[in-house]
Order: sequence, then C-alpha cells, then structure tokens
Amino acid sequence: MEKIDHSKMTEEEFLAQYDPTQFPKGPYLAVDNVLFAVEELPNDNIRKLSEKRLQVLLVKRTEHPFLGLWSLPGIFPGWEETLEEACLRSLRLKSHLQDIHLEQLYTFSNPRRDPRTRIVSTSYMGLVNKSMLPHIEASPTAEWFTIGSSDFPKKLAFDHAMIIEYGLQRIRNKLEYTDIAFSLLPKEFTLAQLQQVYEIILGKSLSKANFQRKIKDKVESTNTYQTGGFRPALLYKHKKPA
Amino acid sequence: MEKIDHSKMTEEEFLAQYDPTQFPKGPYLAVDNVLFAVEELPNDNIRKLSEKRLQVLLVKRTEHPFLGLWSLPGIFPGWEETLEEACLRSLRLKSHLQDIHLEQLYTFSNPRRDPRTRIVSTSYMGLVNKSMLPHIEASPTAEWFTIGSSDFPKKLAFDHAMIIEYGLQRIRNKLEYTDIAFSLLPKEFTLAQLQQVYEIILGKSLSKANFQRKIKDKVESTNTYQTGGFRPALLYKHKKPA
Repeated sequence: MEKIDHSKMTEEEFLAQYDPTQFPKGPYLAVDNVLFAVEELPNDNIRKLSEKRLQVLLVKRTEHPFLGLWSLPGIFPGWEETLEEACLRSLRLKSHLQDIHLEQLYTFSNPRRDPRTRIVSTSYMGLVNKSMLPHIEASPTAEWFTIGSSDFPKKLAFDHAMIIEYGLQRIRNKLEYTDIAFSLLPKEFTLAQLQQVYEIILGKSLSKANFQRKIKDKVESTNTYQTGGFRPALLYKHKKPA
Repeated sequence: MEKIDHSKMTEEEFLAQYDPTQFPKGPYLAVDNVLFAVEELPNDNIRKLSEKRLQVLLVKRTEHPFLGLWSLPGIFPGWEETLEEACLRSLRLKSHLQDIHLEQLYTFSNPRRDPRTRIVSTSYMGLVNKSMLPHIEASPTAEWFTIGSSDFPKKLAFDHAMIIEYGLQRIRNKLEYTDIAFSLLPKEFTLAQLQQVYEIILGKSLSKANFQRKIKDKVESTNTYQTGGFRPALLYKHKKPA
C-alpha cells in the first residue's frame, strides 16, 4: 500500500479517513475493583470495643479461565464510559453495590497476566465501612473475605493476589498522609476506636504511646465523654490541617 | 449465533477457541511520558548558587491530529511489551534518552480525549537532573520547555496540559513523603542547594526558617564545609529513615 502524506490533508479530512484497524493490534483493556471494607462484628459487651476486621470483595469465576476460583470484580470497559464508570458498573452488576467512592490504583500490563489474550487491567480501589453502607444485597457470586484469615482463598484468578497486595500497600501509605482513617469512623470517636482502625488496616498491633504520638496532630478533643463503657472515654474529632 | 456453554469445556479447550474479536470493541490504549528535568544554568559567580529551573520534555506533532502543536512523547504499546517498556521505547525513539527511571502516573480515560478514536492513555513520569545525564542527544522533534516560562507553549495537543499538571502535583506530593529531592543532588550538599530544589519543584519561594523546620529530620551534618563561596557552608547528607 502506498504511504499517504496525511499532513497534506486538513485535520478534518484526516479524522474522516482515520481507521485504527489499519495499525498493529494493541493490548485489550479491562478494569478490576479492589474494594476493601471494615466490618464490625456483633458485640454483646458494651464495655469492650466491638471487634473489626478488614475484608475485600471477591467474585467467583463462573467462566473460563480460572473457572471456580475467586477473583476481583472486573469488566471490559465500554466504548463510551470512563474506566471509573466501568468499575462502578461492574460493582453494580456483580455485587449490587452503588455509589462507592473509588480511586485509581494502578494499571497492570504484564503481557502474560491473562491467558486469553493480551489484556491490560486498570485497577480501582475503594474502602468502605460496612456498618455505614445503606444496604448490601447478597449476590450469588460476590462475597467479602477477611484478609489474613484462614478462609481467605489460597489461590486467586489472574494476578489478582498481587493487585490486592498493591492495594493494601496503598491504603497503608494513605493512613500516614491522608484522612482515610477518619472516613471509617463516626464524627466523634475515642482514641481506642481510632487506634483499632489503624491496627486493622496495618494488620498489626501498635503500642498506645507510639500510636498517640503518630496521630496527635490529626485529632482534637471535643471535651465530651463517651459513656457506657468501663470508664468514660474522651471523645475526639478529626482536626483538619490549617 | 447459538450461545455456547464454555464451562463444559476444559480451560485448554476454551483458550484454544477464544476469539477476542467476537466481543464489542473496547478502547484502544496508548502511553505518554511526563519527563521532568532540573536544569542548572551556567554560572560565572562562584559565590552564588547556579540558577536552576524545572523543565518538561515535549515533542512537536508531525502528524494529525494537532499537527504542529507540542505534545508529550507517547506511543502505542506493542503486543509483547509492558506499558513501561513502551514508554522507554518512545523516549528512545523520540528523544534518544535511555535508562530513565519512570513511575506510573495515571491512566486517563475520558472518552473524548482523542479526536481519532477512543484511546485511553497510561502516563508515566520521570524526574532527572540534566547535569547528571551522561548524554542528551539533540532530536529534531523533542525539546525541553521550562515550566511557567513565557516560552512554554500556550496550547498543547490532546489533554497533555492536564497530564503535566497531574504530574506536577505528584512530584510536589513526593517532595513531602519521599526522597525525591535527594536524587537531584550530589551526595553532600548545602541546605541552600536543597532549598533551591524544593523551590524549583514547588514553583515558589520558601522562608529559610519554614524550610529548615520541614527538612530537619531528613538531613544530617557531615561536619565538613563547602569552600569557595562568600563564606564556608556546612555540607549535609541525606539521613535515611531508621
């Protein structure tokens, strides 16, 4: 085929004759959601903090490849939607979750990451407090799994274990330099509650002294007390940076 | 066409018959580089710090669309390369720059961002010290532009002005919570040199007192002095977190 000098055309003429299929085929594109949730376990003892745990939403593969394994909820984006819109669509379809705040996590592009064909995946991440979600309807294929628990699937589809690990690192970093912890708490909270959120996300215990040094500039006292526990605990609120 | 129940097949049988072209066409995928550089201007006065400025690498569009406008160096990734490899290939091809450390910035997916067709772009970002680059060969189409200068193009191709703005925000954040400033300096440096790097990246002047409070935990004295200036200046080095 003779090479055409497109610069002789106007941009309108160029766009009218532009045919992307004449170029070598590039990678396909998919999206995947890493949706974390803090779950609060039922608590009979009002003198103790209710136990919390960090979970991630997985869906069971009902198709090849990796049929029967658990995977992140994902989808192929449509021609007319942003990747974030595609993520929200897949959450609606696969888990009935709506209006979740998502942020872009990373685009994974290892040429061997999908056995079907060359598929690049842009992942989005969210973090919700299950007790604050208005409504979670059960879905036949979606389920929350507690990170680090013995129930967590030993093997996930595709590179999704790595994507979850990447998401965990991101929210752990965000604990340090953003307000993410406060989005999981009521407006007024005790330092014990805040420390518990940190410990769940970091996946380890913190000493009370170290923890309080770390967060002292992020909170301020409300001068009111939470009653009902063993002894009244001072309530704090998030101190927005000046 | 009759719907086939693929779950009756083995995964191998499924993959052997898998044809991605049978599905609705998804977005195309491109990559773009936001490569920042710190340039040191020639300096005749050894009593003063040489002036530095922050630049970004742009290439002139030699094709439609946006023919003649400046744009970020980008490319369509090949079938067998990661997106980062594609970025490095485009830097080699368009600017002869090699072995640049890149990190993924963001994937831009507005359906209207490219007038040709639906093209999603994953951007990668780098930051180099031009005086530390072994060799920059001139390229007919690539040029460094100083951010904020009157020479900076008023209009860039595609959404590339927005991508550069996003990259600027990222390196400004990275100043706070990473070691990025030290990668632009020799092993031993004066606080004035470090402050200058901060000011170039932040695009504003800092008071000496504020600046020194901000970085006091990140540096330690070498107990040696830089001589040659108006008065000897204490040399510092980067103090790695414990």
